[in-house]
This record gives sequence, C-alpha cells and structure tokens, in this order.
Amino acid sequence: MTTNRLLNRETHRGVPVRSANLREHLESPRTQAALRIQQGMLTSARDYLVHRGFVELLPPIIGPVTDPGARGAKQVDVDFYGHRYKLMTSAILYKQASLTAFDKLFYIAPNIRLESPESASTSRHLAEFHQIDVEIAGATRDQAMRVAEDLVVHVLRDVIVSRSSHLAALGRNCDRLARAVAGPFGRYTHTAAVEHLHELGHDQHHGTEIDWQAESLISQANERPFFITEYPKGSRGFYDRENCEQPGVLQSFDLLAPEGYGELCSGSERENEYSKIVTRIRETGENPSKYGWYVDLAREGIPPSAGFGLGLERFTRYVAGLHSVWQASAYPKVPGVASP
Amino acid sequence: MTTNRLLNRETHRGVPVRSANLREHLESPRTQAALRIQQGMLTSARDYLVHRGFVELLPPIIGPVTDPGARGAKQVDVDFYGHRYKLMTSAILYKQASLTAFDKLFYIAPNIRLESPESASTSRHLAEFHQIDVEIAGATRDQAMRVAEDLVVHVLRDVIVSRSSHLAALGRNCDRLARAVAGPFGRYTHTAAVEHLHELGHDQHHGTEIDWQAESLISQANERPFFITEYPKGSRGFYDRENCEQPGVLQSFDLLAPEGYGELCSGSERENEYSKIVTRIRETGENPSKYGWYVDLAREGIPPSAGFGLGLERFTRYVAGLHSVWQASAYPKVPGVASP
Repeated sequence: MTTNRLLNRETHRGVPVRSANLREHLESPRTQAALRIQQGMLTSARDYLVHRGFVELLPPIIGPVTDPGARGAKQVDVDFYGHRYKLMTSAILYKQASLTAFDKLFYIAPNIRLESPESASTSRHLAEFHQIDVEIAGATRDQAMRVAEDLVVHVLRDVIVSRSSHLAALGRNCDRLARAVAGPFGRYTHTAAVEHLHELGHDQHHGTEIDWQAESLISQANERPFFITEYPKGSRGFYDRENCEQPGVLQSFDLLAPEGYGELCSGSERENEYSKIVTRIRETGENPSKYGWYVDLAREGIPPSAGFGLGLERFTRYVAGLHSVWQASAYPKVPGVASP
Repeated sequence: MTTNRLLNRETHRGVPVRSANLREHLESPRTQAALRIQQGMLTSARDYLVHRGFVELLPPIIGPVTDPGARGAKQVDVDFYGHRYKLMTSAILYKQASLTAFDKLFYIAPNIRLESPESASTSRHLAEFHQIDVEIAGATRDQAMRVAEDLVVHVLRDVIVSRSSHLAALGRNCDRLARAVAGPFGRYTHTAAVEHLHELGHDQHHGTEIDWQAESLISQANERPFFITEYPKGSRGFYDRENCEQPGVLQSFDLLAPEGYGELCSGSERENEYSKIVTRIRETGENPSKYGWYVDLAREGIPPSAGFGLGLERFTRYVAGLHSVWQASAYPKVPGVASP
C-alpha cells in the first residue's frame, strides 16, 4: 500500500497488540510517530473548528441511550445504580440535544462498538475508537460536507508541515498527500458508486450499504478523498433525514480516503421532526420509548442540523500510511481480541 | 459561597439535572458560561503542557484493569467479548505503562466512579467526570507538585483574561481569583492539616484520609490553593510510593482550592519496584494476578515517575464559582440519580 520503512516487519504479520506486547507496541518508533502525527491532527482540527465558531464539548461516555446505527456492531451495557445504561457507540443523540445551547459544536468522542470478531482482519475496525464529531444547527447536508472537506484539507496541509519528520520516519509520501488535497473532493451518488463497483468487477447491490471490501476497492481507484452520497434507507441510523423528493434515499454522505484506506467519515442532514423520528425508529423495529429523554426532547422540538463523525484512528491511518487502524491507537482494542 | 447572579435561583435548590430537564440545563446561561470557561481552561492547560514537552495521548475508556484507589467508589464492569473489563476509574496504570514511550505525557481522561448515592449532596461528586492526568518519568513528588501548581496558576491567569465576560456573567470575583494565584501555594503535611482541623473544631483522625467535610472546612479557611502532603498509607492506591524513611507515609499530595471548594487534584511519586508493587497490592487485600498486564509490565520494569490527576469539573467549579460540580458538566451524572 505504501513504501514504509518502519512498517515493513509488521505489514506482512499484521498482528494486533495483545496483552503480552503493550510495551513492544508503545516502544515502537512507528507507534510513537503515529501518535505524534495524530496529536498534530487534533491540534489542527481544533484550530480549524474553534476559529470558525465551533464550541468543543466533552461528550458523555455512558448514558441511557446511544446511537443504534452502528452497522451491526454490538452495544455494551453497563449498570448505573440499577439503571441499564450503554457505552456510547456514538454521541449523535447528545449532539442534537446540545444544539439547544450551541449552534456549532464538536466533540473528540471516544466510542465503543463490539464489531464482529471477523472484522479484526479488515485492517480498519477497532472496538474502541474516537470520532471528531461535528454538528451544525440549521445546516444542509451539503454545508456539512463542505465543513468535512475543508477540515480534512486543513488538517492534511498542517501535518505535512508540522509533522514532516514523523511522516518521513514512517516512509509516507508527502507529495502524494499534498496532491490528494490539491483540488476539490470528488463525489459519487450511491447509485453511481455501485455502478463504478460493477465496472471494477465487484458484485454490489443497489439497495444496501457499501461493504468494506467494496469501499476498499473504490478507494484504491481514487487518488483524492471523495464523497458517496444518498445512501439507501435501512443502511443508517433513524436520525439521517430521508429525502422528501426521493423516498428511501437519505440526505447522507460518507467521505472515503483514497489509496484503499476506505471510509473516514459519515454524516447527514438530521431528522428533527418528532413524528418522522418516531416513524423511523419504528421502521427499524425498535420501540421509540426505548429512547427516553431523546424522544421527549424531540417532542418539544430540536433544531434542524447536519453534521458528521470523522474516525480519528482511520484518518490517522490514512495520513500516516499505516497498514492497520490499530497502529493508530496507544491502547488498541481489536474486535474479539483480549488486549490491555 | 459567592455572589452569583446566574446561580442565585438554583444555589438554594441545588437540584441536579434529571432526564426531564436536560434542555433546561443546556439552555441555562449559567451552564453555557461554565462550559465556555471550561473550554478556555482546557485550551490553556494544553498550551501550558504542550509547550513544556508533554505529549497528549487519548486514554483508554475500558480495559481489563483500572485504578483501585477510588476511595470506596464502585467500579463498573463491562463484557468485552466474554472478558470482564472495567470502565476506567482513572487511567493511572496506563499512564505508567506509557512512560515506556513518552517521558512526559498527559490525558484529558473521562472516568466513571459509582460514588455512594449519599455523595450526591456533597456538591463535589460526579459519577462521570474528567481529569487532566499528568505523568512525568524520573520526577520526584515535589517536581510533580511544582507542575501542578504552575499549571493551575497558568490556567487561572489565562481564563481571567480570555473568559472575563463569562466569569462576569456568573458574578465571579476575578480579583479574588487573581489574588489566589498571586503567590506560592501553601503546604501542610497531613499531620499539620489534622492539627489545623482540630483547631477548627473538626474531629479528624491522624491515620485516615481527610474526609470531604474536613476538606471543605480547611478549604474555607484558606484564600489561596494549598497542598496537603504525606497522606497515610491505606488512604490511597497501591501505586503511591511509600516514604522509605517514614514507613506508613506516602510520597503523595492533594491540591485543594480555597473558599470551601475543596480537593482539586491528587498526585504522588509512584511505586515502580515490582516486589513493592506486589506487596502493596497484597496489603490492600487484592491478588496481584488480578492486575494482569500491569504486574507483567512491572516485572519487566517500568520507569520511576510522579504525576497527578486534576479534576476538571471540580477545577471548573472553583474557577467559575459554581455551587455544585454537576453545573460544570454538559451531561451531568450525579451519583445515584438517573440522568440523560
């Protein structure tokens, strides 16, 4: 995937960190370079967002409700004084609630999703990971896409300069990174992406989420980050707004990295109408009463918005040119693997 | 406690947020001012630490081991693919492990501690909170105290300027805050603090942790933040180093706010000798094998260090002059109270 001095030994092993080798992982110059690049990325992301009027909030870790739209990953229950709480799979519902206080906000949010143990071999799933989680009151889907694009461009241009020695130590081709953000990001609709995948010889259905193998394939065929828009309903959470002129199609987007690194970010315009939220929850087979405070708040009214969650470890993997996403975490938790 | 325009109505109610009024909490100008002050404090803390060579890392949220020294608060178990993991009560053990990679590091770490429901009325306990968690390889206890003091002074001086309008809106007396950091912080040994408490008419024992009522009392008697050092063994986690010349006394410290706000920060020089760690764990009645990867790592050797955890919401409460610590959280989880 990349010429990578520090990676060579482990690229072909791809062995995730287990208890026995936390020291080896932390002492590795590759890990240290990746974490320093990641910190540069976070500094740059905060700089971009704060200077545009976004307020950073500290997200909740546990709560009575969380994001159900985690594509098959299991939620983790915890007992909070006899109440059944969950670890956040994403803090989307809290982002929407917080728009009652702040028009433009973001979190650096830790999330826990128990992905299937099979996903340990995808190079791109972690059971514990972080999102740069952004929400904008009154924004359209396209305005949120613009913020996501500008944020990614800003961060890449910054770290190419501020972390050049760490990128060089990892053998990352900075010219390639610079070219990736030299022009506007491309854009496929879900339909166009499926057709493109057919041309690439991949059997992708029109009505479903693009799976990770397909994402990897279409990602390899691109040299710049690119969007896929208009995902079909059913593939996402109930909070992604449905297009009123195209029933069954969501006002959603993914942002994918080039070079085979795949999905970086998911976002959408949000549903904020109470009756539609309740209908959408029911369509997923769940009882709206399960969403306690969230449906109560929606009944009283929540602001319209759009936003996204940008996976920090995936973004770091792409920027640093890492073989696997677990290499972008100090204490990686690979699905199904007992780890420190 | 303070003259406080926005607080007046609720100072005497002190009612923590319940599900029904997340909106009321977030829409409150007091909450919004407190959160903007808190963000100013985090920006200032990062500025201080990063410019002194500290690397910020993202802490784990769950793991097979966590801090046992949470003074009676219960840990939360989670099921991680059939393994019994815990939510972090503090990430101290991961900080020590990470010194194998970075000499000076910090986290902005979320922690979950199920404090007793009675502590809901102390104005200073949250079940979910954050720490500015700092660790320094090769440092002495006194060097860690110096970093804690300088950090608190730096943050206070910054926010008095950068968040003056929000502090004014909360009715916080900024002259009093400025005077609080105009000179070096005072210092009591635990023995001296106990004697001072006796003078104040409080029945505090010499051999035990200073309880929260006593902390509040001694805090009210001070106009500047101050340290209490040399806590007796038994009151803290096994990782606080015992003074080799004074067995039973720890190389530890607390930093307390003045004006009755009480404890802000706990720290110590750490035990890093394997045999002593194992002995100290056994002394607390636990089996060292329970600490899996941590004792394995200690057997191979971990660097000597000192460090501390500064409670972010408590620090915000003091700076913003809030009645209760839950007012410094966007999504407060008060012990024993079902909340969003």
